[in-house]
Amino acid sequence: MQGIFLENNTLGIRNDIPVPEPDFGEALIRVRTAGICSTDLELVRGYYPYRGVLGHEFVGEVVHSPDDSSWEGIRVVGEINAVCGKCENCLAGRKTHCDNRTVLGIKDRSGAFAEFLTLPLDNLLRVPDNMPDERAVFVEPLAAALEILEQVPIKSGDRVIVVGAGRLGQLVAQTIALTGCTLSVVARHESQRRLLETRGIPVMDETNLPHRNFDIAVDTTGSPGGFAVARNALRPRGTLVIKSTYAGALQVDFSSIVVDEITVIGSRCGPFLPALDLLAGEKVDTSSLISGRYPITNGLLAFEHAARSGVFKILLSQN
Amino acid sequence: MQGIFLENNTLGIRNDIPVPEPDFGEALIRVRTAGICSTDLELVRGYYPYRGVLGHEFVGEVVHSPDDSSWEGIRVVGEINAVCGKCENCLAGRKTHCDNRTVLGIKDRSGAFAEFLTLPLDNLLRVPDNMPDERAVFVEPLAAALEILEQVPIKSGDRVIVVGAGRLGQLVAQTIALTGCTLSVVARHESQRRLLETRGIPVMDETNLPHRNFDIAVDTTGSPGGFAVARNALRPRGTLVIKSTYAGALQVDFSSIVVDEITVIGSRCGPFLPALDLLAGEKVDTSSLISGRYPITNGLLAFEHAARSGVFKILLSQN
Repeated sequence: MQGIFLENNTLGIRNDIPVPEPDFGEALIRVRTAGICSTDLELVRGYYPYRGVLGHEFVGEVVHSPDDSSWEGIRVVGEINAVCGKCENCLAGRKTHCDNRTVLGIKDRSGAFAEFLTLPLDNLLRVPDNMPDERAVFVEPLAAALEILEQVPIKSGDRVIVVGAGRLGQLVAQTIALTGCTLSVVARHESQRRLLETRGIPVMDETNLPHRNFDIAVDTTGSPGGFAVARNALRPRGTLVIKSTYAGALQVDFSSIVVDEITVIGSRCGPFLPALDLLAGEKVDTSSLISGRYPITNGLLAFEHAARSGVFKILLSQN
Repeated sequence: MQGIFLENNTLGIRNDIPVPEPDFGEALIRVRTAGICSTDLELVRGYYPYRGVLGHEFVGEVVHSPDDSSWEGIRVVGEINAVCGKCENCLAGRKTHCDNRTVLGIKDRSGAFAEFLTLPLDNLLRVPDNMPDERAVFVEPLAAALEILEQVPIKSGDRVIVVGAGRLGQLVAQTIALTGCTLSVVARHESQRRLLETRGIPVMDETNLPHRNFDIAVDTTGSPGGFAVARNALRPRGTLVIKSTYAGALQVDFSSIVVDEITVIGSRCGPFLPALDLLAGEKVDTSSLISGRYPITNGLLAFEHAARSGVFKILLSQN
């Protein structure tokens, strides 16, 4: 099959990739639409070691399900962590942290930027018939945004600042806005600001952000500068959610974190079902987040486009 | 009066220090016994800017209380943050984070390593008559240890590791042990290990500590090495409490903190009343933590002693 393959920090379009074979309890899924995420760009930059087909945001159709044929023909999205169910993390309910996990297009499992992928049936959620592919493909990043609300209770009176308004930052801002808190977003690009203003979300400039003012800050930038803006915006005993990864180590003044008793929380994958529900209820806008569509054949152009600043979601489809 | 005075990172014994004058609502307190804390040693090293009499751990006697003479003659300990009661942090119940605070022997308030100090009456707690000075002087560091339990609920089944077993680490270990959790402590010095073993607290070696195993880790070392040991000991979604300050910035791999969804919490001053209760109930042993006693005249020797590795609490008294 054709797919976007990463090897030695180099992307290539390959036509000779073997179709993955579903393991016990797994389904073979034909990918209908997939989305490029910042993690994909980071994998290309070599932040994590991975060799194989990239991609973990997708909507597809089950074409073969040897252990339960009732899934065949069903349009699905899928939780990207395939887990053992037996390790301590799985048994404690921390399935996304399974010691033995494979992760779609990230760790030991061929990804979604190809004609086919496999996932365990346990990972699949049926997509409502009236939800278009280009909406359903946002379930995975929206789930990641919702993970913040799983980790930090945000109340209606809280002052929350989201730093960064890129493809993930926009979803984070929209989901946090649903809590009724007093939300502001630090956005650098005009395109980002416009989108937020359309949704009625106040935009702030990092240069005139009040210091020591916010109860909760979320850094979605993955940059030391974004971390610093978020940290300085927090009041004592505030909470800083890190909703992104950073290249290399970060220099942090931990004395000030101790003196101000700041809580810092790393945040990764989130719950799929509430994300699907939010999309079904049209509580989150995704159509304005689509910056481009490419066939997999033009995958390298798609990646170039996704890496430009101010660009939101780039979608990939079969040729 | 005589006192241990810090100026330009240099300690000196001075005899010409003016007796501080109690402000409205404050008491003048004659210091009976004071304790040297690692923060004092850090202040001497210049980690924070401070000029004045050092010292914040004390037990003393109220000698003058212009606004409420009923305090006079009472033996007291005192919360070290003197607060405005009017700023947003005070009104929100975060008094130790008052925007306008002065802090005894740390920030804009003459400290306890002298004959007299002043504190607001609101900060004072009466010491039970049967509690000796050398026990009461531990209220402040014990309160700091108890702050961890205010911030992180520790349940009886939790696996907790305390890294570092110095003067604060020992109190942290003893208070966490009271929760009934499964506690281990990483201790480098034989004197530290012996004390822990006397209390029935298991000691572990950092070289054979199981990785990704503990629910909660507390770093009391203030060193990058201690932070790394604590972080690597944590299971995914574990909590790392930073119960110390670090010199300068710390290099931290935040990508791993995101992937493992670790929570990092800075921890500073804690609640005095539960600390006094624990000491009154003899739930915490402090007598074995006293490594030496000096008169203020020999304050420089006392500081040298306190800075030696493996040394616990050094007490200071009037000459």
